[in-house]
Amino acid sequence: MKLWQKATGSKKEVEQFTIGRDPEFDSILAPFDVLGSMAHAHMLAKIGLLTEEDNAILQKGLKEIYFEIEQGKFSIAPGVEDVHSQVEFLLTERYGEVGKKLHSGRSRNDQVLVDLKLYYRAAIQELVGEVSELFDLLLTLSEKHKNDLMPGYTHTQLAMPSSFGLWFGSFAESLTEDMGLLKAAFDLSNKNPLGSAAGYGSSFPLDRTMTTELLGFADLHHNVINAQNSRGKTERTLSFALAGLAGTLNKLATDVCLFMNQHFAFISFPDDLTTGSSIMPHKKNPDVFELIRAKTNQVQAVPTAVGYLLTNMSTGYHRDMQLLKEEIFPAIETMKSCLSMSTFMLKSIRVRPNILQDSFYKHLFSVEVVNELVLQGVPFRDAYKKVGLDIEADQFSPDQTSLNHTHEGSIGNLCTKEIQEKMNKSQKEFDFERVLQAIQGLIK
Amino acid sequence: MKLWQKATGSKKEVEQFTIGRDPEFDSILAPFDVLGSMAHAHMLAKIGLLTEEDNAILQKGLKEIYFEIEQGKFSIAPGVEDVHSQVEFLLTERYGEVGKKLHSGRSRNDQVLVDLKLYYRAAIQELVGEVSELFDLLLTLSEKHKNDLMPGYTHTQLAMPSSFGLWFGSFAESLTEDMGLLKAAFDLSNKNPLGSAAGYGSSFPLDRTMTTELLGFADLHHNVINAQNSRGKTERTLSFALAGLAGTLNKLATDVCLFMNQHFAFISFPDDLTTGSSIMPHKKNPDVFELIRAKTNQVQAVPTAVGYLLTNMSTGYHRDMQLLKEEIFPAIETMKSCLSMSTFMLKSIRVRPNILQDSFYKHLFSVEVVNELVLQGVPFRDAYKKVGLDIEADQFSPDQTSLNHTHEGSIGNLCTKEIQEKMNKSQKEFDFERVLQAIQGLIK
Amino acid sequence: MKLWQKATGSKKEVEQFTIGRDPEFDSILAPFDVLGSMAHAHMLAKIGLLTEEDNAILQKGLKEIYFEIEQGKFSIAPGVEDVHSQVEFLLTERYGEVGKKLHSGRSRNDQVLVDLKLYYRAAIQELVGEVSELFDLLLTLSEKHKNDLMPGYTHTQLAMPSSFGLWFGSFAESLTEDMGLLKAAFDLSNKNPLGSAAGYGSSFPLDRTMTTELLGFADLHHNVINAQNSRGKTERTLSFALAGLAGTLNKLATDVCLFMNQHFAFISFPDDLTTGSSIMPHKKNPDVFELIRAKTNQVQAVPTAVGYLLTNMSTGYHRDMQLLKEEIFPAIETMKSCLSMSTFMLKSIRVRPNILQDSFYKHLFSVEVVNELVLQGVPFRDAYKKVGLDIEADQFSPDQTSLNHTHEGSIGNLCTKEIQEKMNKSQKEFDFERVLQAIQGLIK
Amino acid sequence: MKLWQKATGSKKEVEQFTIGRDPEFDSILAPFDVLGSMAHAHMLAKIGLLTEEDNAILQKGLKEIYFEIEQGKFSIAPGVEDVHSQVEFLLTERYGEVGKKLHSGRSRNDQVLVDLKLYYRAAIQELVGEVSELFDLLLTLSEKHKNDLMPGYTHTQLAMPSSFGLWFGSFAESLTEDMGLLKAAFDLSNKNPLGSAAGYGSSFPLDRTMTTELLGFADLHHNVINAQNSRGKTERTLSFALAGLAGTLNKLATDVCLFMNQHFAFISFPDDLTTGSSIMPHKKNPDVFELIRAKTNQVQAVPTAVGYLLTNMSTGYHRDMQLLKEEIFPAIETMKSCLSMSTFMLKSIRVRPNILQDSFYKHLFSVEVVNELVLQGVPFRDAYKKVGLDIEADQFSPDQTSLNHTHEGSIGNLCTKEIQEKMNKSQKEFDFERVLQAIQGLIK
Repeated sequence: MKLWQKATGSKKEVEQFTIGRDPEFDSILAPFDVLGSMAHAHMLAKIGLLTEEDNAILQKGLKEIYFEIEQGKFSIAPGVEDVHSQVEFLLTERYGEVGKKLHSGRSRNDQVLVDLKLYYRAAIQELVGEVSELFDLLLTLSEKHKNDLMPGYTHTQLAMPSSFGLWFGSFAESLTEDMGLLKAAFDLSNKNPLGSAAGYGSSFPLDRTMTTELLGFADLHHNVINAQNSRGKTERTLSFALAGLAGTLNKLATDVCLFMNQHFAFISFPDDLTTGSSIMPHKKNPDVFELIRAKTNQVQAVPTAVGYLLTNMSTGYHRDMQLLKEEIFPAIETMKSCLSMSTFMLKSIRVRPNILQDSFYKHLFSVEVVNELVLQGVPFRDAYKKVGLDIEADQFSPDQTSLNHTHEGSIGNLCTKEIQEKMNKSQKEFDFERVLQAIQGLIK
Repeated sequence: MKLWQKATGSKKEVEQFTIGRDPEFDSILAPFDVLGSMAHAHMLAKIGLLTEEDNAILQKGLKEIYFEIEQGKFSIAPGVEDVHSQVEFLLTERYGEVGKKLHSGRSRNDQVLVDLKLYYRAAIQELVGEVSELFDLLLTLSEKHKNDLMPGYTHTQLAMPSSFGLWFGSFAESLTEDMGLLKAAFDLSNKNPLGSAAGYGSSFPLDRTMTTELLGFADLHHNVINAQNSRGKTERTLSFALAGLAGTLNKLATDVCLFMNQHFAFISFPDDLTTGSSIMPHKKNPDVFELIRAKTNQVQAVPTAVGYLLTNMSTGYHRDMQLLKEEIFPAIETMKSCLSMSTFMLKSIRVRPNILQDSFYKHLFSVEVVNELVLQGVPFRDAYKKVGLDIEADQFSPDQTSLNHTHEGSIGNLCTKEIQEKMNKSQKEFDFERVLQAIQGLIK
Repeated sequence: MKLWQKATGSKKEVEQFTIGRDPEFDSILAPFDVLGSMAHAHMLAKIGLLTEEDNAILQKGLKEIYFEIEQGKFSIAPGVEDVHSQVEFLLTERYGEVGKKLHSGRSRNDQVLVDLKLYYRAAIQELVGEVSELFDLLLTLSEKHKNDLMPGYTHTQLAMPSSFGLWFGSFAESLTEDMGLLKAAFDLSNKNPLGSAAGYGSSFPLDRTMTTELLGFADLHHNVINAQNSRGKTERTLSFALAGLAGTLNKLATDVCLFMNQHFAFISFPDDLTTGSSIMPHKKNPDVFELIRAKTNQVQAVPTAVGYLLTNMSTGYHRDMQLLKEEIFPAIETMKSCLSMSTFMLKSIRVRPNILQDSFYKHLFSVEVVNELVLQGVPFRDAYKKVGLDIEADQFSPDQTSLNHTHEGSIGNLCTKEIQEKMNKSQKEFDFERVLQAIQGLIK
Repeated sequence: MKLWQKATGSKKEVEQFTIGRDPEFDSILAPFDVLGSMAHAHMLAKIGLLTEEDNAILQKGLKEIYFEIEQGKFSIAPGVEDVHSQVEFLLTERYGEVGKKLHSGRSRNDQVLVDLKLYYRAAIQELVGEVSELFDLLLTLSEKHKNDLMPGYTHTQLAMPSSFGLWFGSFAESLTEDMGLLKAAFDLSNKNPLGSAAGYGSSFPLDRTMTTELLGFADLHHNVINAQNSRGKTERTLSFALAGLAGTLNKLATDVCLFMNQHFAFISFPDDLTTGSSIMPHKKNPDVFELIRAKTNQVQAVPTAVGYLLTNMSTGYHRDMQLLKEEIFPAIETMKSCLSMSTFMLKSIRVRPNILQDSFYKHLFSVEVVNELVLQGVPFRDAYKKVGLDIEADQFSPDQTSLNHTHEGSIGNLCTKEIQEKMNKSQKEFDFERVLQAIQGLIK
């Protein structure tokens, strides 16, 4: 039975086709749906559309359901259309007519919207947590391996000396720079759409500022059409943030797969973290990082799917938007697992020492020698020429064990502290504390 | 003649293929290249790699070239490889050997990087300016038409009463929300890569903090590998910001094209802003908005092109990155023109008055009537049923001229001031003033 | 226990992360895996790597499993890695050592490849069947409504007279043109990869031509590296075919949603095929077609995801390819359901008659009148001017009930027979009969 | 002055914005526009809308213009809107009123459509020519290097012995498989849209079969709406064909860049085909192949841009379609140059001999030894175990100089002839001869 239903029902073919993967996603949204209803009920009581008694009953009933969800005791009964209906039916079943009063001044459009916003906000918090763990590990590895030199490549050609300290550190700093997109997505998720109803507002004297505060939102989408159009825009922005982060992990995974190739053999992992072949003992397939590379590619494609769903579409809700969930929800899970598996694997990474001491790498040091001459007073172009001629005459034998790089961010000066501070600063910009307090206020 | 060249040159087929559209883009980068060189020379002087006299000559020479560029008197001479070489050759031609000293402690990789960062930073400033103009106009139109009702649609079906005030305002607020991605792109563009050389730093005691300040950057990419890897990451982030903005304009253009359709006929433009047919007088083709819709689609596809260029690529410079310019530079221009043309057109938009007074639209008011009953004390589900039955019996005749919507962001309460404040706040987060002062400091 | 396993196993985190959705997809591949093994065993027997007795046992055992799969009695036992292992373990359990002999001269790489090719081939056959049903219905509707005029639009502006016959027919012919991409995908799926082993062939004297014939493939990928690289290329081509078809349905769904809008109100569907609102009786939300529009957008995005997984990747198998299944398998199912739901819905479509007789549409006929004058001898530019002036003076009142269009493919000459012949011809190019006979030969 | 223009002109801002890059593309379309007009005029004469005398004059005039275009003497005069207008104005200027009669029974919509179809058809022919040259070279290289062994990789890990013969041959066969998509694009381009007018046909008794034959089209889009909707569908299909081909070249370029890395050092090119550094003599940057890799990535992104332009768009012409040219025209040129540069470079490729004789590669031969044991009668799993134990005990020393692979498509049996036959067969399916004869018939 559907809430909007007249006498005639839908054909079962239509039902099957339109329901899609919604039940699966609804169970993710369930706790957020309850929180949204709590705030809505409080507000209805304040503006006189609910009595205080009714509100008290509703809060009690909703809190019960919230904890049932937390304890895994909640499910959508067969024949019930969605999570919203299930919650309303439970309330009505347990507390009578009052359950039916909850939907005043609200449409399913803004109800779903607020659920999604609350879920995205929580998901971004989890992502930031995963990023933070990986970041800490990368900085630790960077410090640990700051004296382990390795080649640096341009055009995938041997170019200059580098170090594992530099390499690990580069991904740490890159993660600090992914926070900008995550923050943009968080800010858009952290705006209250409740009260926009079907996208054109309501003739009830709703207090949208009140629900904004109760739910810990930093702001509201003021304009109600814009609130509705944030369905899609929020997902697009979040898909960009996920894709940006995916780009960073993709490069890390690509490097790892290359450096595990036997011609490089720069890094390795314990046997139980790679897959192998009992007949080719030197074969250590980097399956986990191949899959991180692949999964981050899937995530990078999500903005296209989201974009197609939205483009050339006029203002207002379209059923198409239901499918945004199919694109975004799995992408969030994918990124969480890619982050945690990167951390899991890198905890066991082994770095080959003394790579650059092999004469195979001596030409990497040519620019070092040129620069040394310059610092001794030889004009750059002359120093350059001299070293070039030495190399051509095969009389070039530099010191391959040490380097004297001192500037900010170089081999000898990794600026670990500065990079750490960037991450600290980025994380502080997310006001997760306010969110926590609001939710605790609702369910206390 | 190339700087890296040995005796043998490249085959002309190779030259043609590899040069691509670079000359065209280099002329855009020219002023930024000169600014980067100014900062670099000051820094070399400070660390003793240039004498103060040499630096004075270089600053003089670079300032000359900067103003030649501004006056359109600069071009890359035939046979000169790129803008960097042209500047170095001009300096050497005019001031002798000192011109050759400028390249110490720098690679073309970080030189191009700094040019690009400075260009993107300036481009984002221009975009923010264009957004601001469109935003102001939209808010003005929103206030002007706040009493002009129109239908609101869900599923492209007539749904609820809306207003032009609400519709214009929705795009204004949406633009404030596009600033988050622009800010993320700005922040990434506003970091100094100079001193990262070929991506692995330098053995010269460069002072990267100094060039950071001289160029007005808010920060530096500390880790030099990360600085190099920001080539691509910056473009990806910028492509997301452009695509986000494109999404907003795409919806505006889609609405306009639909509302100009004769069945709707809600809005119109003067004849000289539409294209028509002398034989079908009511045909006013919305070509400009069709092209804004189409161009914003092209821009939304840019992240995919950027993503393909970058994905599965290992750390370090690859020549592939040259082509990022082909994707991003035109997209910046496209968005600027789409924004300015939207402003240009909307200045002349005409709105049809009194649309909703036609009985064709009476069912739009059904929810209004339900809510009124609720406010009079009738339980929601009962009110709902009563109105439904009235409609079925064709006894539904609501007042179609006025609405009493009062909550935040609704038809009767557009929250124009709050939306304006969001834009003001967003814009203040871009520290354009600091950028301006730094550049004036260099060229004073 | 894994086939390649040494003493140490994988960590459970690695197992969970790497297995992904494979069990779900493996059950789809199961029957095809058995068919591939049947052909492989026959071939091994022919080249002397199996005795005729062993082959007879294997054929018996495989046939049993094939029918168990068909009857839903097959599943992958807990702890068994994949469908290939499950089949081998079943054979060994039931018939002893002979089960272990099956894998000679084959790698899991070419085994999966052949499973995928056989599955894609079957899936394309199903898609062609669904296309065919929709096509037949569209042609029927085209003939049925050949005299029902409707407006034709350019720039979404009223432009010229059209008809429902023309409109339905346009999608029918469009479907005939989607067969080219499906055929390209079929041809690539219909090539035998078996015998390519891990992508570099085998030192066994395999008879690849024999397995090609036994499995009803039209050809083999001769070069074994190319056979392996067809993993990915096949999926890319198939994704294009699906996206092409999706483009056709997307336009159909877009038109339907627009024509169901109340301003147009050209078409309608029975209540039980739309979703509505008991309070807004004229609201008939076109959810099914909105979801077809959205799902075909998801499918159109699949080539991007496939492209990301493949681009910049070197020759040879990478674990990344496992995820191609996650993109392609659901897209196949989506397109099948979009096709069948389009057919299901269009069976009940109702067309509004006599639309163009309203004077609202009279200007649509202006070109008709011009042409009539031209046929009477008036020069085109003069006729054009005269009609234009009549319209301007509001003295234009054409006959709006009939049209005399006679040329190929016009309102009065729909060329239904020619369009039908195109579809017949396209379908004959798929040699489904050969496939059927081969499979029946194996399981007889 | 525009053909559709009334008294008032468009604002210059509108003109600038809407014209875009059309003049540039119009010069590419010019010769095809003239051919389309020739066929149209012949047809008008046949159905009595032109006298034979008028047609003779028009044919003469059009032929003149055709040869002026061929000789580079044609350009679009300032103030003339497009190529169609320029041709009409030239005819009128030279031959009077007859020039104005040409446009009867045709709209600019079907005129552009036919130009595009003719251009795409010609472009595909050129692409097939470039593919053919590269294919021939790859097969030649495959035969030349059939005895040069190299490692084969899976998971980018050393896996099995391969050969350069196999590697070159894999790309040759892959190109034969790219012909399917090119054929699908050709077939769609090779259908006549002329006579569809603005997408709804004409009341003139046009003979569309006649223009189909005169222009050498294999067929016509019968349904006129479908003819119009082929704008976009044709570009989508062509974008798929280009992207498919791009995928093949992208893998080739990726392999080349990897194999040029100094750790691999399998292949090299003469100095004047790579870019280098005078100070790092072993650095041979593979810029050409990096750019082929990058450009083929750009081309692979084109379907996304095309998809965005088309999706969710209703039936009929929209101005958006103008921008399809901006996506497709450059992509065609890019693919032609990527193909010709691949051929140009590979003509000079040098292969390192005797790679596999290094003991570094001995484990590659483990499967060979297992298989040998099996052929001697040892059960597979036992042989596998024995070799595994030998390797573990470091007692594995296979013969690394020769291999005995004999099956179809393996190292010892490249099936060059079969692959050549596939290409011959594919090429014959394009009826370029018919096209040539038709065009010669028109301009004779």
